[in-house]
Amino acid sequence: MTGHLSIVGLGPGAAGLQTPDASAALAEATDLVGYLPYLQRVARSIGQVRHASDNRVELDRARHALELAASGRVVAVVSSGDAGVFGMASAVFEAMEAGPVGWRQLDVRVVPGISAVFAAAARLGAPLGHDFCAISLSDNRKPWALVLRRLTAAAQAGFVIALYNPRSRARPEQLGEALDTLRLTLAPQTLVAFARAVSRPEEHVEIMALADADPLLADMSTLVLIGTAETRSIPRADGTVWLYAPRTAC
Amino acid sequence: MTGHLSIVGLGPGAAGLQTPDASAALAEATDLVGYLPYLQRVARSIGQVRHASDNRVELDRARHALELAASGRVVAVVSSGDAGVFGMASAVFEAMEAGPVGWRQLDVRVVPGISAVFAAAARLGAPLGHDFCAISLSDNRKPWALVLRRLTAAAQAGFVIALYNPRSRARPEQLGEALDTLRLTLAPQTLVAFARAVSRPEEHVEIMALADADPLLADMSTLVLIGTAETRSIPRADGTVWLYAPRTAC
Repeated sequence: MTGHLSIVGLGPGAAGLQTPDASAALAEATDLVGYLPYLQRVARSIGQVRHASDNRVELDRARHALELAASGRVVAVVSSGDAGVFGMASAVFEAMEAGPVGWRQLDVRVVPGISAVFAAAARLGAPLGHDFCAISLSDNRKPWALVLRRLTAAAQAGFVIALYNPRSRARPEQLGEALDTLRLTLAPQTLVAFARAVSRPEEHVEIMALADADPLLADMSTLVLIGTAETRSIPRADGTVWLYAPRTAC
Repeated sequence: MTGHLSIVGLGPGAAGLQTPDASAALAEATDLVGYLPYLQRVARSIGQVRHASDNRVELDRARHALELAASGRVVAVVSSGDAGVFGMASAVFEAMEAGPVGWRQLDVRVVPGISAVFAAAARLGAPLGHDFCAISLSDNRKPWALVLRRLTAAAQAGFVIALYNPRSRARPEQLGEALDTLRLTLAPQTLVAFARAVSRPEEHVEIMALADADPLLADMSTLVLIGTAETRSIPRADGTVWLYAPRTAC
């Protein structure tokens, strides 16, 4: 088979945070496959075909991309952030394993991107200086009890915790339950950040104590970051604060 | 104060994985501060001053960078990967908090980068599709017992685990002990990857079962990735395998 498939992370949104390798893979593609709002971030290129789809049909989209590549096209599957972090990369390999054995001969390449937690952390200061973990709150494909168990394990072990997909219209209650679960382990004054759409025009960042964390501040574009007992803040000139994890006891 | 300080993540090594924002911050700087091997990755620019230092004096280096910025220079502190992930960002904020209050008025900016685990994951396939964590095995600033406790907690809770700083000349035995600790919780056939210097000329990637994981395969340039019970492999045309976390039960 002669087709090529790139799985490309666009980064958090700003052009300055998209890697040159990602830009090159997008420019070379004859076909772009992805969720419409992500495709809309990519500059239009003459003759390039766009296959936009709904966000809930990842496996169909992955199969479609592999079929296009198998037919000789140069395909780029796009994800926001890093395609390997709760993005399209897993779906492509899942489709590949379940599909025709010839798909394994395709030239497939994953191009990493700046995932939301790193864009958020950079804006906040250096809150990830400690050991950290990333947990998706979506229970579309895992039991909610497992999510809560992971939250407790991470808090008890002293990890900084990044929550992806914290809240959606279909799951309005889970972030509140997650925060309540964390409150059983972490002190009320533990610092928490809600970082929405970092690097995009609608960017909005708020920092508060865990006791005051309000789930209504979050939507699907928000990264919620939970500090540890060591997480500190420093006042900034503009009235906001820097958040950071000192290297001691990290 | 009029100085500027950027804390810049260079990414894993390849120019194509360094963000345009990082490149711009490096080009604008009058002074670069960092560990010599990282400074050597940055293209020379006429009139730009380089302040290279040893890797063990992070806080001195951070203070020096803040002093330079406070004196009106445009400073870029460079880290490999993402500066916020076991890099220089925490040291800069630690020095800022301990230093003259005027340092808090400086124009400070953190520019995120592609951290080693994302470069490694992209090369391997999509092993981070699940919830995951990152743990530094260095016990320079935390007790070794805490590292082992975090490893066990992460393995029991089903996180994919990325090990940073797995092995150095000063700490030759710890990776072996870490792997033995993981073997108490994870099955012998759990898939493990050693990804060394990904995207650099000396790149070397090996995938094996946890039972066969040999600490001698790692050095300080290696990212060790520990899969979960769900992590799968798919044969590739070149005789190697893709590693991925299926989205089900993630």
